[in-house]
Amino acid sequence: MQALKDILVVDLGQIYNGSYCSLLLAYFGATVIKVEPPEGEPLRRRLLGFETDREPYEFLMLNPNKLSLCLDLKAEAGKQVFFKLVEKADVLVENFKRGTMERLGLGYDVLSRINPRLIYASGKGFGLSGPYADFPAMDLTVQAMGGVMATTGFPDGPPVKAGPAVCDFTGGIHLFAGVMVALFQRVFTGRGQLVEVSMHDAIYPSLASPLGALYNAVREVPERTGNRHSGLRLAPYNVYPTADGYVAIFCVSERHWEAFARYIGRPELLDDERFKTNSARALNMDELDEIVADWTSRRTRWEIVWGLMEVGVPCAPVMSIREVADDEHLKARGMLRDIEHPEYGTIRLMGNPIRLSDSPLGKIRPPAKLGADTDLVLREYAGLSEAEIRQLREAGVVF
Amino acid sequence: MQALKDILVVDLGQIYNGSYCSLLLAYFGATVIKVEPPEGEPLRRRLLGFETDREPYEFLMLNPNKLSLCLDLKAEAGKQVFFKLVEKADVLVENFKRGTMERLGLGYDVLSRINPRLIYASGKGFGLSGPYADFPAMDLTVQAMGGVMATTGFPDGPPVKAGPAVCDFTGGIHLFAGVMVALFQRVFTGRGQLVEVSMHDAIYPSLASPLGALYNAVREVPERTGNRHSGLRLAPYNVYPTADGYVAIFCVSERHWEAFARYIGRPELLDDERFKTNSARALNMDELDEIVADWTSRRTRWEIVWGLMEVGVPCAPVMSIREVADDEHLKARGMLRDIEHPEYGTIRLMGNPIRLSDSPLGKIRPPAKLGADTDLVLREYAGLSEAEIRQLREAGVVF
Repeated sequence: MQALKDILVVDLGQIYNGSYCSLLLAYFGATVIKVEPPEGEPLRRRLLGFETDREPYEFLMLNPNKLSLCLDLKAEAGKQVFFKLVEKADVLVENFKRGTMERLGLGYDVLSRINPRLIYASGKGFGLSGPYADFPAMDLTVQAMGGVMATTGFPDGPPVKAGPAVCDFTGGIHLFAGVMVALFQRVFTGRGQLVEVSMHDAIYPSLASPLGALYNAVREVPERTGNRHSGLRLAPYNVYPTADGYVAIFCVSERHWEAFARYIGRPELLDDERFKTNSARALNMDELDEIVADWTSRRTRWEIVWGLMEVGVPCAPVMSIREVADDEHLKARGMLRDIEHPEYGTIRLMGNPIRLSDSPLGKIRPPAKLGADTDLVLREYAGLSEAEIRQLREAGVVF
Repeated sequence: MQALKDILVVDLGQIYNGSYCSLLLAYFGATVIKVEPPEGEPLRRRLLGFETDREPYEFLMLNPNKLSLCLDLKAEAGKQVFFKLVEKADVLVENFKRGTMERLGLGYDVLSRINPRLIYASGKGFGLSGPYADFPAMDLTVQAMGGVMATTGFPDGPPVKAGPAVCDFTGGIHLFAGVMVALFQRVFTGRGQLVEVSMHDAIYPSLASPLGALYNAVREVPERTGNRHSGLRLAPYNVYPTADGYVAIFCVSERHWEAFARYIGRPELLDDERFKTNSARALNMDELDEIVADWTSRRTRWEIVWGLMEVGVPCAPVMSIREVADDEHLKARGMLRDIEHPEYGTIRLMGNPIRLSDSPLGKIRPPAKLGADTDLVLREYAGLSEAEIRQLREAGVVF
């Protein structure tokens, strides 16, 4: 039995942030009605005008197990349909620009009057309040303003974005968690509430190490340290070249260093004044990194990793995106799921990163084409008759 | 009223992953008993041996509003005390290495028999199953193996870690969300369950853009693209030098490009064959970036940002870690909270990034010193008498 099987979600999520929240709701068994405008949400259209008009992979990845309702929310009749869904819904998810819902007449005040049990989840780049609230909100503007870029990259180079959309997804998963807290609280209060998550707030906790480097004041350090320890307090602790890519090695204790020096056949380094203690190694990390790189560059990633793991030294191969996309571990854990899409053939979607022993993820249904479930949703969830549905179609309100 | 006010959590969380999960539980009003070994958890001791033996800022940030119980779980009498707490607890959080809980005799099988309503939350680097399950798990090994490093950095440079501990925290917030799903489900089933989150699974969804670049096959692109668009499909879209730092500018539509070219006083670029269409700009992004950088480098970050925002071009100043730590927006939103610590004076802790209108975060209590609440917890939650407590202390089982 799935945890959220009786939960109905009206989903205005788009791109990554809101859609990740509603994907997890769907993966736990909620009925999620994805509501899109006549042209489809932006992510569905991302490749239009390029060499293909396919729905991009990012869209497919984020939208399985959802019903698709295509509805013009700017039309009065469209709004009325929407209100009917809201009446029955447990959760609404949206991540529009601040003010958009209010301009559409769909603000929290309005919808919570229609349904006081409604949990209204707003994902925003910078939140609903504060001086940056109307700043342009996308993953990268939040990375820029939230300290991700400042702390990523080399001390002598520019700030660098993190490759994954960490702010969008960190925001989305916090929003999902907030919805769950509100659903739990509603069991006792009978009331819904407003759940708000700012991506900018949500990424802040993950700065713990750079903030520590700042506040602990053990030693003045640059705000970005390449692949080195953010406090420059540990060595060897870096990413090193190998014969077939890169390997990450992290000696975080004397025990690791001793095992490492012995494993690479350089036990004399343990008695070398430059490397004898951790603070000595930290001061001489350039020299030490050269010694390590000389050793790693003549071996393969896995040769190094299997050997060092054997002697208890923390390390990892740096895996390419192609390797990650075909990773045996992710496959074994059901995180990579090949499913059949009626139009695109086999596509590799993702499982649920949250594993509950009592609420397994069942079959993954391919993402619906725009409006594929419009009739079904209007009939079953908005309670409209066939004649009413026909009328709405003819009036260009639903598609 | 706080959503989790009646929830009791036994918290074996350490460093970031588990502790972030239990921090959010505490911030929503749960009673969280942080259980630590006689020497304290690793994060509490992180600065030992450096110039100070203070608890590091990272520890303070992650552990307010928790009670501290110092208990030797390796002693049989310690285990018995622990079982008494588990009997009453709603949630157990742990993020030890796989197998540690079982070796201590505290595995899910054992604890769920003692308390079938217990939600047992396991945060792991690579999860409880699969070929990597026993690989060394820390934020950076997961960044290496999970595609974060591969997609971060410049095409002609090495893979780079993201500065924030994105894998630890992404894992932690997924774990918190999983606990909330399980608490919700328990209302209906009366049973607890095992919640498991692998950091390696949890970071995977955030690779949506790089995976899209791989699968959409619109164009062959390097797996990391510096600060450029991960599909190299958009320009200007980069981080540019300014007179006082860096600025991020992202033209994602023709409208943005037109507004940008006019704003910088170069309307003739709109008719230039090299920059006329988005695909032309994508092919000539080196030249275009030079033009943009020439303009930005003669202005300050905020001068650029206020101007471009006015004309609707997405952009953001790159803020330093010092600026983030003192950010007016984060302050206005209550994400930066100055509280008094009895020993360290004023410290700046964080608020709750998940805002619920009906479950506000109240006062933040400073993180407890190791064992500060041992007596209280043993008396109130384990139900021990003063004599029993004294005996345990004398036997070196509690501290």
